[in-house]
Amino acid sequence: MERRAAQLRWERHTQRPLLALAVAFALAYAVPIVDGSAGRTVTSLCTVVEWTVWGAFAVDYLMRLALTPRRRDFVRTHWPDLCAVVLPVLQPLRLLRLVSTLLLVGRRARMAPQIRLTTYVVGSVIGLLMFGSLAVLSVERDSPNGNIRTLGDAVWWSFTTMTTVGYGDHAPTTGLGRMIAVGLMLSGIALLGVVTANIAAWFISRFEKDDVEERRQTEAIAALAEEVRLLRAEVARLAAERQEQPR
Amino acid sequence: MERRAAQLRWERHTQRPLLALAVAFALAYAVPIVDGSAGRTVTSLCTVVEWTVWGAFAVDYLMRLALTPRRRDFVRTHWPDLCAVVLPVLQPLRLLRLVSTLLLVGRRARMAPQIRLTTYVVGSVIGLLMFGSLAVLSVERDSPNGNIRTLGDAVWWSFTTMTTVGYGDHAPTTGLGRMIAVGLMLSGIALLGVVTANIAAWFISRFEKDDVEERRQTEAIAALAEEVRLLRAEVARLAAERQEQPR
Amino acid sequence: MERRAAQLRWERHTQRPLLALAVAFALAYAVPIVDGSAGRTVTSLCTVVEWTVWGAFAVDYLMRLALTPRRRDFVRTHWPDLCAVVLPVLQPLRLLRLVSTLLLVGRRARMAPQIRLTTYVVGSVIGLLMFGSLAVLSVERDSPNGNIRTLGDAVWWSFTTMTTVGYGDHAPTTGLGRMIAVGLMLSGIALLGVVTANIAAWFISRFEKDDVEERRQTEAIAALAEEVRLLRAEVARLAAERQEQPR
Amino acid sequence: MERRAAQLRWERHTQRPLLALAVAFALAYAVPIVDGSAGRTVTSLCTVVEWTVWGAFAVDYLMRLALTPRRRDFVRTHWPDLCAVVLPVLQPLRLLRLVSTLLLVGRRARMAPQIRLTTYVVGSVIGLLMFGSLAVLSVERDSPNGNIRTLGDAVWWSFTTMTTVGYGDHAPTTGLGRMIAVGLMLSGIALLGVVTANIAAWFISRFEKDDVEERRQTEAIAALAEEVRLLRAEVARLAAERQEQPR
Repeated sequence: MERRAAQLRWERHTQRPLLALAVAFALAYAVPIVDGSAGRTVTSLCTVVEWTVWGAFAVDYLMRLALTPRRRDFVRTHWPDLCAVVLPVLQPLRLLRLVSTLLLVGRRARMAPQIRLTTYVVGSVIGLLMFGSLAVLSVERDSPNGNIRTLGDAVWWSFTTMTTVGYGDHAPTTGLGRMIAVGLMLSGIALLGVVTANIAAWFISRFEKDDVEERRQTEAIAALAEEVRLLRAEVARLAAERQEQPR
Repeated sequence: MERRAAQLRWERHTQRPLLALAVAFALAYAVPIVDGSAGRTVTSLCTVVEWTVWGAFAVDYLMRLALTPRRRDFVRTHWPDLCAVVLPVLQPLRLLRLVSTLLLVGRRARMAPQIRLTTYVVGSVIGLLMFGSLAVLSVERDSPNGNIRTLGDAVWWSFTTMTTVGYGDHAPTTGLGRMIAVGLMLSGIALLGVVTANIAAWFISRFEKDDVEERRQTEAIAALAEEVRLLRAEVARLAAERQEQPR
Repeated sequence: MERRAAQLRWERHTQRPLLALAVAFALAYAVPIVDGSAGRTVTSLCTVVEWTVWGAFAVDYLMRLALTPRRRDFVRTHWPDLCAVVLPVLQPLRLLRLVSTLLLVGRRARMAPQIRLTTYVVGSVIGLLMFGSLAVLSVERDSPNGNIRTLGDAVWWSFTTMTTVGYGDHAPTTGLGRMIAVGLMLSGIALLGVVTANIAAWFISRFEKDDVEERRQTEAIAALAEEVRLLRAEVARLAAERQEQPR
Repeated sequence: MERRAAQLRWERHTQRPLLALAVAFALAYAVPIVDGSAGRTVTSLCTVVEWTVWGAFAVDYLMRLALTPRRRDFVRTHWPDLCAVVLPVLQPLRLLRLVSTLLLVGRRARMAPQIRLTTYVVGSVIGLLMFGSLAVLSVERDSPNGNIRTLGDAVWWSFTTMTTVGYGDHAPTTGLGRMIAVGLMLSGIALLGVVTANIAAWFISRFEKDDVEERRQTEAIAALAEEVRLLRAEVARLAAERQEQPR
């Protein structure tokens, strides 16, 4: 039990520093893409920051694994975290590092107890839009037939993809770009589902008039209980009288 | 309490005049865009009307703020109203004035107690379609690569965007036009959510057969209560007899 | 009350003949569009059939109006029927006749008691797809910039529009064609809403485990009632004994 | 009853072998399309495998029909299976064989008791994406105006179609290709519905706070029952005392 408490304490204390590192990663990822003519120093600095952030999340995963009481269960239920930690070592691609870090940040965020599902979804959508735009831009800019060459076009394309509007004035042409696009499409469908479900749940909770019937039932049961209490008092009085009664 | 009543009275009395002003704003906004060759007199008259309507809503905001019992809460929960009042002063752009006034009209409309959510959503969608078309037309008409040059094309584009169909035969090319497009897309997703949720809530309210079970419960409780009432009467009769009984 | 019965009898007896007329209308509408080189005799025969079917539905409306007990209410709640009856007289356009007849058929179909909502929606969607394709084809075929020139393209375009996919390889270019497209888009959104709502309602009805709790409650109430019944029998026996008791 | 048990035993025992055959079919269908330059031997081998798998499913259908206690009901409720068995005999087209086998596999899979709806839907979507891509590729590759000529393009197009994004950079041009596209679109809408409904049902089950009220009711009823039990004991004691009482 003590170890479980230590794990929770670790998770609470590391929450804010990890969030700050996530922001640092976002900047380090964005700078070389937005500023296409960034020098070599800047680019390698950014790479260092990216690896550092990934490393911090890997350490966080290992610490939580060390502190958890049931290690086997932890590994089994947190297998995406494990993948996200291991993958960048196997294939040190920039995009993979992005996906890994996003996954690790997202899974840590979902763990935070004070976050509500809607906030989580909105945050994910904004994050996916931002990083989807950057990733597509970095992939498509150098493609010979590509038509996403500025940050503006990339953001615009991300929006038309995620809302499933899909004008087709800009569309990825490379395999990697299309994989990013599929990710955006699927998260767009999920977003639409969450929005609709939120509204539907709110509607239905207002439609529910069963409350009235149930409250009436509760009142009826309470009245009945009062009646029985009175009856029992009466019988008790009767019994007491009998005792006292001269025979 | 008196102040709260004054606030409600103000809101009720100003409802109709503000609606009339909103219609005036719509006309003043539409005229210079639809009639591209409108003279300078007409254009400046329209600008005056726009500022007047915005001013009236600003006064309405200030009056409600003055009348509300808890000013700090009012400012905090009505921060979009505050933004809508302040922004056109900082940046006197036409589009910003439109967004501000739409926001103010929408938030006042939501306050009206007799309006139902579905009416509100349908009204918002029609308003967004109308103003989205006009705004895109005014922005894209002068863009060198623009392909939205007539009111018909703008309305058609608005519909294909809001329903997320997105043929791509017309699409905005400027940054401002794309921001308007994103607004239309997001409201289209919200519209789809509301339509689906409405139908789902209606379906589910028809599916609910719990009522039968609950009504049977209520009846069972009522029968039980009657039984206990009879029992208590019997015991009371018994007790009374005993009292009378010659000893 | 007798008149209300007469109205219901009329509606029941005319249901099948009107359905047959609707099919005749569909054929009469389709033939001149599909067979572009149809002779004048065929075309004018089709026009006659169209007017006859519209006339039959107009007579049906008038008969129902004559038989209804509360005429004012009937006119008020059936205003779309009235529009559909009156409009083709004012503007004898072919498309308007189509819209009017579709509206009349749809409203009569919704009245049939044995039809379920899902059947109604699926029927409407198929009808809209079919007539949307034909109407767009007839409108766009003669447009100079049109790109919907064969029945195959028209049907394909209808599907891409109604499912909100919107590739944009075919899109209407005339005002009328775009109005038909908007109709298809909106009904596509409604279709999506109905599909989602149907699945959601089915899911939720399976999720509801309240039944268990409620059934337990009902059983508890029944057991309680049995207990009280036994108690009352005991008290009654006690009272009876007392009566018999030699004093 | 014995026959029903035999049918269930058959279905349980054949489940795994049929799944293996389905995978074999997938490979046999994919190879000649992916490897466009496959020799005649490979192609005819694949055709043999396809016919064998279809034959195995046909035998499975006939066995289940032979084992079922109510044959007429089985044929009526399993009419899509019958179509899927008969159609490839009438029209030995490759695409028809694919549709038939997919239908038979899907219907057998739905019968498996341990499968949950969400798993079934996700499986169907992946299967449809895979086979939709292959089928469109085989149909469109030889079309003169076709723009889907590589497997990558076909998969990409399938995703943009199923998510209803529809960029329009690739779109089928032949009648058959468009029929496949319509199938993908409709299943995409169904997928969206299932995703939304799943989220909505989950939301609503969390929103339901009726449990609290009901649990309170259950507790109240239990307390009441206890009260009545005590009362009955009191009355019983009273009656017993009376019996013992010296007269």
